[in-house]
Amino acid sequence: MKQVMVARADLKMGKGKLAAQVAHASLAAAEEARARRQEWFDDWKAQGQRKIVVRAQSEEELRELLKKARARKLPAALIEDAGLTQLEPGTATCLGIGPAPDEELDGITGSLRLF
Amino acid sequence: MKQVMVARADLKMGKGKLAAQVAHASLAAAEEARARRQEWFDDWKAQGQRKIVVRAQSEEELRELLKKARARKLPAALIEDAGLTQLEPGTATCLGIGPAPDEELDGITGSLRLF
Repeated sequence: MKQVMVARADLKMGKGKLAAQVAHASLAAAEEARARRQEWFDDWKAQGQRKIVVRAQSEEELRELLKKARARKLPAALIEDAGLTQLEPGTATCLGIGPAPDEELDGITGSLRLF
Repeated sequence: MKQVMVARADLKMGKGKLAAQVAHASLAAAEEARARRQEWFDDWKAQGQRKIVVRAQSEEELRELLKKARARKLPAALIEDAGLTQLEPGTATCLGIGPAPDEELDGITGSLRLF
């Protein structure tokens, strides 16, 4: 079990900003898993809540990955920034997918580079 | 309402590593709030789950902040890295405090610099 956060490398977010967006995505996707796939959520927690952060290069790429995750019925959450500080309002910054079994996730995010 | 993650700036974690540690701390502290202070958790969610990431310079500093948070009965979680990649096993990397009212948190983390 793992959870993968796909964050945009093209936005040049600062370290703290990036970390906050990844945390938003992690929490939102985990909440969805807890509601819809509690056995995945529980297994993931019991196994140490593995989290991986990988890179996307555009908003379009994030939205394509979200579509694939939804098609496979994986828990997923796309974060759009309120735009109060570094970004334009509504900018999609990070996608959280899972927790889910590794093989389910690898078909979607397995080729993306680690952040 | 907000949640503050205090991450160690002295460890020179990479961006993705730091983001994962912040996400661990966010989720663990949020779980504690959900269990012990559900009204804070619900208000924070309703208000957009504000998350702030600030800097600490040592493990000792994180442990002192944890002590203060516990003394005020705030939800808090200290993350120790499993040490599989960049760090020694057991290294404390990040402390999550809250969600809690701003004024409760500002007394503990208000003087720390943004990450």
